[in-house]
Amino acid sequence: MTNGERLRPADGRFEGRTHYFPLRVYFEDTDVAGIVYYANYLRFIERARSDLLRALGIDQRRALEDGIGVYAVAEVNIRYRASAKLGDDLLVVTRLEEIRAASVLIHQQVRRDREIVADAMVTAAFLSPEGRPRRQPKPWVERFERLQEEGKA
Amino acid sequence: MTNGERLRPADGRFEGRTHYFPLRVYFEDTDVAGIVYYANYLRFIERARSDLLRALGIDQRRALEDGIGVYAVAEVNIRYRASAKLGDDLLVVTRLEEIRAASVLIHQQVRRDREIVADAMVTAAFLSPEGRPRRQPKPWVERFERLQEEGKA
Amino acid sequence: MTNGERLRPADGRFEGRTHYFPLRVYFEDTDVAGIVYYANYLRFIERARSDLLRALGIDQRRALEDGIGVYAVAEVNIRYRASAKLGDDLLVVTRLEEIRAASVLIHQQVRRDREIVADAMVTAAFLSPEGRPRRQPKPWVERFERLQEEGKA
Amino acid sequence: MTNGERLRPADGRFEGRTHYFPLRVYFEDTDVAGIVYYANYLRFIERARSDLLRALGIDQRRALEDGIGVYAVAEVNIRYRASAKLGDDLLVVTRLEEIRAASVLIHQQVRRDREIVADAMVTAAFLSPEGRPRRQPKPWVERFERLQEEGKA
Repeated sequence: MTNGERLRPADGRFEGRTHYFPLRVYFEDTDVAGIVYYANYLRFIERARSDLLRALGIDQRRALEDGIGVYAVAEVNIRYRASAKLGDDLLVVTRLEEIRAASVLIHQQVRRDREIVADAMVTAAFLSPEGRPRRQPKPWVERFERLQEEGKA
Repeated sequence: MTNGERLRPADGRFEGRTHYFPLRVYFEDTDVAGIVYYANYLRFIERARSDLLRALGIDQRRALEDGIGVYAVAEVNIRYRASAKLGDDLLVVTRLEEIRAASVLIHQQVRRDREIVADAMVTAAFLSPEGRPRRQPKPWVERFERLQEEGKA
Repeated sequence: MTNGERLRPADGRFEGRTHYFPLRVYFEDTDVAGIVYYANYLRFIERARSDLLRALGIDQRRALEDGIGVYAVAEVNIRYRASAKLGDDLLVVTRLEEIRAASVLIHQQVRRDREIVADAMVTAAFLSPEGRPRRQPKPWVERFERLQEEGKA
Repeated sequence: MTNGERLRPADGRFEGRTHYFPLRVYFEDTDVAGIVYYANYLRFIERARSDLLRALGIDQRRALEDGIGVYAVAEVNIRYRASAKLGDDLLVVTRLEEIRAASVLIHQQVRRDREIVADAMVTAAFLSPEGRPRRQPKPWVERFERLQEEGKA
């Protein structure tokens, strides 16, 4: 009797320095126009970023609870190139583009099969609990940099 | 070169007549009180119901596009018994309790390991595109009934 | 030069012990079925409860920041009786039904003109920052009770 | 006996060619980091755009139901410059920057008093019900252009 106990939500995966994260479109994501509401792509790509950090062994909840800090998005440039619909299986493809002391520049695409549905450049800034820019923890930066190296290999 | 192409969102699974669906809590699900915002459990259990229908071969998007109809929730009774938090892995456990001509009564629990986080009874009514109660398609009802039988076996 | 500076979001209003709160349906609230997604009514009625507290001079954010506590919903029983659509003006009608030491029972209806769109009974429990049931602050309870009296006048 | 019947959600307002729309931050808008979740600013600015169209006499729901078309966002560039919190009163300040045949370029700021919380440039494309770019209805374009003229007066 397993009682669904070994069932787990889908984790994303790295291939080289690129991170892939799958998700499905539910009713909650759509609007009366029949397509995914534009703000919800920002939810999708945040899930992928959280999964990427998790895959690197970074525990955002603990960082928050321990007063270390939290990422806040400072800038998003996103182009919507197609419309996702109810039941679509999407893939968020994520790459760290640039590691700075207190922020990261991230390229994220939402794809449906080989089609690019949305293409975003995101700047995530690390903040202290008081909301001030703060250097990212050193071990995190090291993991990001090791990841970058992978891409060049 | 796989490029994440075989990565898929987690499907739920039946064990007997009980359906299990896994999900993870992201930032979007939480609120300033540090826990999952109460309305979002309704999003979680809807995902599980959609997955259950999908597992039975029922295509809600096609039913909607073909003018056959759509489920709308007529009633929810939900008790919140614990608080889910950022990063928690949850399991939605779903059972069809009663199959009527134009609606279904569904019992759903949100669990974290063995703890019940939320417990809901949901009535989902089938509606025509004009929003009027409509008998559920016969093949769907047959699948629901076959599922019920499974539980008695 | 006003520059929109005196524009304010709509506050709700008490008439006797009944609180009225207006809102409008936007794209974000709808889904592909063309109607308001069922979970979003829980967002609507929470806005009305927050407005009711504010009208009574209760500052939830301060209570949270000062470690006094926060309301968490313990139970919702909601019946969906009609479908709200894009652009609809709705009114949330709220009454405190019962004041207990650590929780409040609240009746809330979502109306469109004279039609009842949704009808909910909500139990809101007061919690300490650690998430344990806690008596509501005495001045709050006194305000709730004074409100109840109003209804009998 | 008014029964809250004359209570209405807050409409925005034009001053010259600039549109102002007020809103308040509720629990649903925040996340565990204690601030407004970044995707929700896209909900806020969409409300303001819908209100702007409404103020110009444009009925988006009817346009959708009549098969005329619907706006879909093609691009957003948004910078988050401060963090809004629970209970904050915000003002969305909107200007049409450029009217093209099948799209509009819109500048939107979210302000808290005199502080700019978020600053966005949005391209909204008009789409046919099949999701193809379509010229905006001529009477709409005329209203947009008349609005632009106002700014030069």
